[in-house]
Amino acid sequence: MSADGRRAFITSVGDLLASWNLPHATGRAYGLLLLSEEPISLDTIAAELELSKGAVSTAVRQLDSWGLARVIPQPGSRRLLVEATGGIESLLEASQARARTLIAALREGESLVRSGPAQERLHDVIGLFAGYVDLGGRMLAEHRRRRTGSARP
Amino acid sequence: MSADGRRAFITSVGDLLASWNLPHATGRAYGLLLLSEEPISLDTIAAELELSKGAVSTAVRQLDSWGLARVIPQPGSRRLLVEATGGIESLLEASQARARTLIAALREGESLVRSGPAQERLHDVIGLFAGYVDLGGRMLAEHRRRRTGSARP
Repeated sequence: MSADGRRAFITSVGDLLASWNLPHATGRAYGLLLLSEEPISLDTIAAELELSKGAVSTAVRQLDSWGLARVIPQPGSRRLLVEATGGIESLLEASQARARTLIAALREGESLVRSGPAQERLHDVIGLFAGYVDLGGRMLAEHRRRRTGSARP
Repeated sequence: MSADGRRAFITSVGDLLASWNLPHATGRAYGLLLLSEEPISLDTIAAELELSKGAVSTAVRQLDSWGLARVIPQPGSRRLLVEATGGIESLLEASQARARTLIAALREGESLVRSGPAQERLHDVIGLFAGYVDLGGRMLAEHRRRRTGSARP
C-alpha cells in the first residue's frame, strides 16, 4: 500500500468535506477511517494525521454527529475505537438544506426588482439554481428510500 | 424598495457565490448587479457596497471572467459600466469540474483497500457522490442545450 497514495486520498477527502463546510482535519480523519479495514483508536488517528489529541477528539465528535463515523467504547477500558460509516448522504442533505435557505432568500429578491428584463434575469438565475438543488434532493430521497428498504431497520 | 431587503439579498448572493469559492465581495457585487435594472458604474458599486475601488475592480474582473457580468466601455470616456448576465451555469460547471477531480482522486483510493467490507463502504460513498455530481452535470448540459437552441448564436 503506497504511503503517497494514502496521503493523497486523505487530502482529497479533506478537500471534499471542506467544500461542505467541515474543517479539513475532520475530512482527513474521515479519509483515514475510510481506508481502515478495522476500527482504529483516536491515538492512531492523531499519529497518522499528525494532529493533537484535542483536534482528533473534535474531528471524531463531528464525524459522529454527522453520521459519518461510529464511536465504539471498549468494555473495561476508557479507550474508544472509531469506524467510518458510509453515510455521506447526511452531508449532501445538509448542503441541500443550506442551498434551499439561499434560494428562499434569493426569491425574496425578486420582489425588489420591477417586472422587466432585470426581473427575468433574476428569475432565470434562481430557477437554474433551484432546479439544480431540487434534482440533487430527489436523488438523495431516492437513495434513502432504497437504503431503508434493504439494509436499515 | 426596502434597503434592508436589498442588503439581505446582496449578502445571500455573496454567501451563495462564496460556497463556490468566489470571494464574498465578488458575490455581493453580483447581487447588486442582479438588482440593477440598468448597467452601473464601478463607483456606484463601490459606494453601495462600501468597498474600495481596487476591491470593486477585482470583483468585476472576476465576474467578467466567469461570464457573470459584462463590462461595457463608454465611448469617449474611461468610465466603464457593468451589467449582470444570467450565466450562473458557468459557476455550477466549475463546481462540477472540481467535484469530478475529487471523484477521480477518491477512485484511486479504492485500490488502497483490500476487497471486503471497507472496499464496499468506500465504493458506496464514491458511488453516491459520483451519482449526485453526474445528475447535476446532465441537468447543466440539458440547460445549455436549450439555451443554445434559443438565444445563443
